[in-house]
Parts: sequence; C-alpha cells; structure tokens
Amino acid sequence: MIQKVTLRDKFELFHDHWHPRIVGQVNDMHVKLTRLKGEFLWHTHDEEDEMFLVVEGQLIIRLRDGEVALGPGEFIVIPHGVEHQPVAMEEVLVMLFEPVGTLNTGNVENERTVAQLDWI
Amino acid sequence: MIQKVTLRDKFELFHDHWHPRIVGQVNDMHVKLTRLKGEFLWHTHDEEDEMFLVVEGQLIIRLRDGEVALGPGEFIVIPHGVEHQPVAMEEVLVMLFEPVGTLNTGNVENERTVAQLDWI
Repeated sequence: MIQKVTLRDKFELFHDHWHPRIVGQVNDMHVKLTRLKGEFLWHTHDEEDEMFLVVEGQLIIRLRDGEVALGPGEFIVIPHGVEHQPVAMEEVLVMLFEPVGTLNTGNVENERTVAQLDWI
Repeated sequence: MIQKVTLRDKFELFHDHWHPRIVGQVNDMHVKLTRLKGEFLWHTHDEEDEMFLVVEGQLIIRLRDGEVALGPGEFIVIPHGVEHQPVAMEEVLVMLFEPVGTLNTGNVENERTVAQLDWI
C-alpha cells in the first residue's frame, strides 16, 4: 500500500548540510529534504523553478534586489533564471520541490555540487 | 521583488471546504491550499500525481486496499490512476502539489468539481 512520509522522521536520517535527499516524486518533480547551515553560493537554474518551504529554523534567500527571510510554514518560489543565494545563520530544515534532475548548485558545478541524490 | 508565502495568512483568506486556491507555481505544477471537512468522493486522476501535505488537523486517505492517516508535517503522494477518497473527521488544512489543470474531482465531474481555481 502507498506509504505516507513523516518529515521529522526523514530529517533524522541525515545530519549533514547542503546535501538534499529525495523523499517523494509528483509526476516529474522531486520532493527533497535538506539541512542548511551557513552561506551557499550564488547560482541560478536555467530551466527549473525551485520552491523552498521552511520546516524549522530561519532561512534567508538573498536576491540581487534584496533578501527574503522565511520561517516555519513559509515558502518562496525562485523562478528559473533568477540568481539567488540561500543563507542560514543557524541550521534550517527545508523541503524543496523542483524538477527531477535539478542540480543543487544550478549553473555552477564545484565541490558543493551533489550530482547523485539518494532516496530516503 | 519575489514575495514569500505565509501559509497561515493564506488560509485565513478563505474558510470554505473542498475548494482549493492556488498559492504558487513551480514550472508546470501548482501549489494549492485547501480546507477539508467531511467525506470527499472516490476519484482518480488519469495522468496527474497528487501530493497532500497536512498543515493542521488529521487527514485520512482511503485507498482500495486500506487507509492512511496523516497529521501535521506528513504527506502522501497518490500516483495517477490510483483511486482515493480524502476524509476529514474534523477540519484539516492541506497543501496540495499537483500539475497545472488538475481537477479536484479527477475523473468525476459533478457539483463538487471546481473548474476554475483562483490565485490568492
């Protein structure tokens, strides 16, 4: 039978940062969970919109024209082509919705790129 | 500048049941909010997977081979083609994630079908 997903239980399965895990798929979109802490790099996604829903903590998304602060129960959709930099002063737990195949670092590939994502 | 969405604030904008509102779009998927109370009808979606994330309350999804009970912070993805019936003994606040154009009643069209969804 189809199983539900309990976000808290899934988050307990990993504790590293900036390394998303896949927890669901809705047609050609992945639902991912990630823990964030510190500053990520500025990047864009050429074709993929990206939704960040904060589950716990405070997330800042820096944009070229300002920044947005999000707490639990708040989300933002970054349209493709829009430069952004996620920043977490303290640890943040985030659920992501984005197309299958979306790279965490978008148009940048470096040591922070996670090329192969695992299902948990 | 891109705006965030606060789920609680959006839920306060409507109080009817079984009438989803659109609060975001991620590529060709809509993010919707809905209040549910009582029994919905059995239906399937021919092509669209459907994700239910419970924000508040308790949601039961009946399937032909059993049922799944979900509380806040839990989600389920109903794959296309799978018959399901959402049931809320008390009011439930739910975030939906599904392809643009998904009908709330799927393969059934009746007085509970909401053909035109509004953005809020």
